[in-house]
Amino acid sequence: MGRRSLLLLLLAFLTPGAAIPVPPALRALSSLHLSTSFRSRPAVAMKYSIHYIQQKVDHFGFHTDKTFKQRYLIADKHWKEDGGSILFYTGNEGDIIWFCNNTGFMWDMAEELKAMLVFAEHRYYGESLPFGANSFKDSRHLNFLTTEQALADFAKLIKYLKRTIPGARNQPVIALGGSYGGMLAAWFRMKYPHLVVGALASSAPIWQFENMVPCGVFMKIVTTDFRKSGPNCSESIRRSWDAISRLTEKGTGLHWLSEALHLCTPLTESQDVQRLKDWISETWVNLAMVDYPYESNFLQPLPAWPIKVVCQYLKNPNVSDTWLLQNIFQALNVYYNYSGQARCLNISETATSSLGALGWSYQTCTEMVMPFCSNGIDDMFEPHSWNFKEFSDDCFKQWGVKPRPSWIPTMYGGKNISSHTNIIFSNGEIDPWSGGGVTKDITDTLLAIVIPEGAHHLDLRASNAFDPITVLLARSLEVRHMKQWIKDFYIWCGEG
Amino acid sequence: MGRRSLLLLLLAFLTPGAAIPVPPALRALSSLHLSTSFRSRPAVAMKYSIHYIQQKVDHFGFHTDKTFKQRYLIADKHWKEDGGSILFYTGNEGDIIWFCNNTGFMWDMAEELKAMLVFAEHRYYGESLPFGANSFKDSRHLNFLTTEQALADFAKLIKYLKRTIPGARNQPVIALGGSYGGMLAAWFRMKYPHLVVGALASSAPIWQFENMVPCGVFMKIVTTDFRKSGPNCSESIRRSWDAISRLTEKGTGLHWLSEALHLCTPLTESQDVQRLKDWISETWVNLAMVDYPYESNFLQPLPAWPIKVVCQYLKNPNVSDTWLLQNIFQALNVYYNYSGQARCLNISETATSSLGALGWSYQTCTEMVMPFCSNGIDDMFEPHSWNFKEFSDDCFKQWGVKPRPSWIPTMYGGKNISSHTNIIFSNGEIDPWSGGGVTKDITDTLLAIVIPEGAHHLDLRASNAFDPITVLLARSLEVRHMKQWIKDFYIWCGEG
Repeated sequence: MGRRSLLLLLLAFLTPGAAIPVPPALRALSSLHLSTSFRSRPAVAMKYSIHYIQQKVDHFGFHTDKTFKQRYLIADKHWKEDGGSILFYTGNEGDIIWFCNNTGFMWDMAEELKAMLVFAEHRYYGESLPFGANSFKDSRHLNFLTTEQALADFAKLIKYLKRTIPGARNQPVIALGGSYGGMLAAWFRMKYPHLVVGALASSAPIWQFENMVPCGVFMKIVTTDFRKSGPNCSESIRRSWDAISRLTEKGTGLHWLSEALHLCTPLTESQDVQRLKDWISETWVNLAMVDYPYESNFLQPLPAWPIKVVCQYLKNPNVSDTWLLQNIFQALNVYYNYSGQARCLNISETATSSLGALGWSYQTCTEMVMPFCSNGIDDMFEPHSWNFKEFSDDCFKQWGVKPRPSWIPTMYGGKNISSHTNIIFSNGEIDPWSGGGVTKDITDTLLAIVIPEGAHHLDLRASNAFDPITVLLARSLEVRHMKQWIKDFYIWCGEG
Repeated sequence: MGRRSLLLLLLAFLTPGAAIPVPPALRALSSLHLSTSFRSRPAVAMKYSIHYIQQKVDHFGFHTDKTFKQRYLIADKHWKEDGGSILFYTGNEGDIIWFCNNTGFMWDMAEELKAMLVFAEHRYYGESLPFGANSFKDSRHLNFLTTEQALADFAKLIKYLKRTIPGARNQPVIALGGSYGGMLAAWFRMKYPHLVVGALASSAPIWQFENMVPCGVFMKIVTTDFRKSGPNCSESIRRSWDAISRLTEKGTGLHWLSEALHLCTPLTESQDVQRLKDWISETWVNLAMVDYPYESNFLQPLPAWPIKVVCQYLKNPNVSDTWLLQNIFQALNVYYNYSGQARCLNISETATSSLGALGWSYQTCTEMVMPFCSNGIDDMFEPHSWNFKEFSDDCFKQWGVKPRPSWIPTMYGGKNISSHTNIIFSNGEIDPWSGGGVTKDITDTLLAIVIPEGAHHLDLRASNAFDPITVLLARSLEVRHMKQWIKDFYIWCGEG
């Protein structure tokens, strides 16, 4: 049970907000990549218009002819009819405005590519609800929440935009996305290569499925991030689990721990202990995903290189249980209370409400079955094996559906994707999702870009003065390939 | 109404039976391609085993987890584990055993390619009925009859065969199909290139959809076949329509015509006249599809180059209406009574019952919307424009569904398919379906092979002594490419 809720939240891919200045106290940590000016360029103003398109609820069946309104955003300030392009964000599991505001890279390159920006909301997220308030009611209403339906929405939308926007017809379209949206961008190029000339799939763990990567790779990377961010840091966390168990075995342990961790709702029963551990684990995972080199604001405001800050409190694993857990509190407090405004910590929350947790939970219970595990040796977590049977039973209990773990590899090719072209897979090496990503070139048009200091889709974020040189290089390589795709399009296909 | 039923039957792609010897009287017509021996090789014995696989009724939704039994055939006499291959027939709209028995080319090349032959039945045809006898009951039961579901069945079947047949795992698979099955073979390579190294799409009119080819091209080719097969032949047919109208305007006309055409059921009301014309049109269309250079047996036994035989009766268009229609009867009689066994002609039938007329009718009313028209000038038929509204209304009346004519081009790329690889599109120039086919190379791995004397997927038929040299060349080219795909697979991917 606890394991499942952890996984669900693991999958709440995060895209932090725009950078804010780093306060002096934290600058030292970022000095490695500090450029001379504090901000290299002013923030790009993100002005977009909001639109809706009628989409079939079911693209793959004809029994129902119902439609729903899919939301999408357009920003065309820099778009040129002559020699321009269309950058198409394949929306993922959340509110499209939130993604739009957190994908600064597209805004940053719009002028150079003379690009119209389009952000398409994923069905069942944000405002794009096929059955309105009833969309999550039961498996009958959720039946149309699949990657195939989402890709079909994108295909119809692109055809519609080309048909209705004067000057757009003969322009090349590039798909872009991060995380689950990066998978969609890659899969969209694979399945609809007639509609997009290429795809940038940032931090897209397309191989985090059955039998493709070891299930433990994710937690191993999280652990490495903590191990490298401070002496004894991961070891302190590894020891904390038993400390929690020992403490809560005693009569007053739950009470003491609730106080020590400043929990909003005290722990009262023994099953709260597993919830607490899951919540703490998720916190470390989330930190690994958003371990950015500058201050950012996503769920909570965070300092630059937040794991380094966290690890300052976790230097000594060889202390008493109570001491260790007081240190853990200090560490958690970095994540949950960097602003200093929090009065207590709420173990029911780790992620922004802009992400659609319900829809994503259903998706992981149907198509998006990603095996995770930990063993406590290669990672700093308690051992959890991947138990598909238990996972499947939980899914059936929650949603009335059974996951089909082999479907995504069957549909999208698994590791055998070399016949496709023009996809860039970018991954940050400190991002735990890179373990399920493509980190080596497959062919000369299926390229891998690895960003050593990069967390979760750092390259898609707005340019920042504290960006490590490796992400600047990655972005410049990405732009160079996109320009080549655009150029090739105009040589072979263009009329405009 | 009449137009629609015509179209539905037009779409009953035919695959005639094994060749039988041409009687002496007809040899002259075939002498152009007569080889010295009457049969160049003995017929290949077609021995296969019958199997079933449990398939999800809905691959694209999780509300129902129901399964059904899909039938498939395997012939492995010539299969070799070492360096072998798998030829996978992507079944089309009919009984798979019938297709298996009529795709001699696969049997003929099995030994050379050390190939296992697999023939997969298309869902909703033959025995592969998702809801048994209720499969065609209503649009709810028919909801899962789509090309996407059919392709997904093929994908699951290939993965299953590779998993369960020792020695099959590391072998290259090639998709093959003719007509609608040829479309499926091509689309399968486009959508699942990780599962098949290439596809042979014979007589696959993948462009016979919205806005891709003129709607009149099909009937124009039919007409050309008749024009070239005998003097005044197409002109006689062109004049027959008005002759029928004039005759049936008179009180006794229906009776006279029923007698003259030896109809099993006499025409009684004026709306029977349109049914009669549709039936005659379909006959000419069917003849154009199966205008093979040797005797064949599909719906009815037919002589070699049957249109030439038909046209022997249609040399003189400048005769009285009654005389002209008596000639038309003689011509029809070639198609319906070559055996001399028929006592009367039945205007309710033109196609074999091995084809699934119901399922195909539904498919044309949903995804497979192919616009056809005639104008009586460029073709020998009565003018019929393509009226989508009327077509759609008829579909809704019959099946409770509305066709989506732009879906197939959106899904499968329309004319913009150049990013795919390893597909051979073969077309016979006298086959009316070649008008919607790919008849020019698109890239150096998307190849077109045109067979000047070829009717509908002649190349997929068993080798025959009367085969024109052009189809021999086509087949040898096809085999050469398939061998190259297999070789490339073993160079890059093979372990076996």
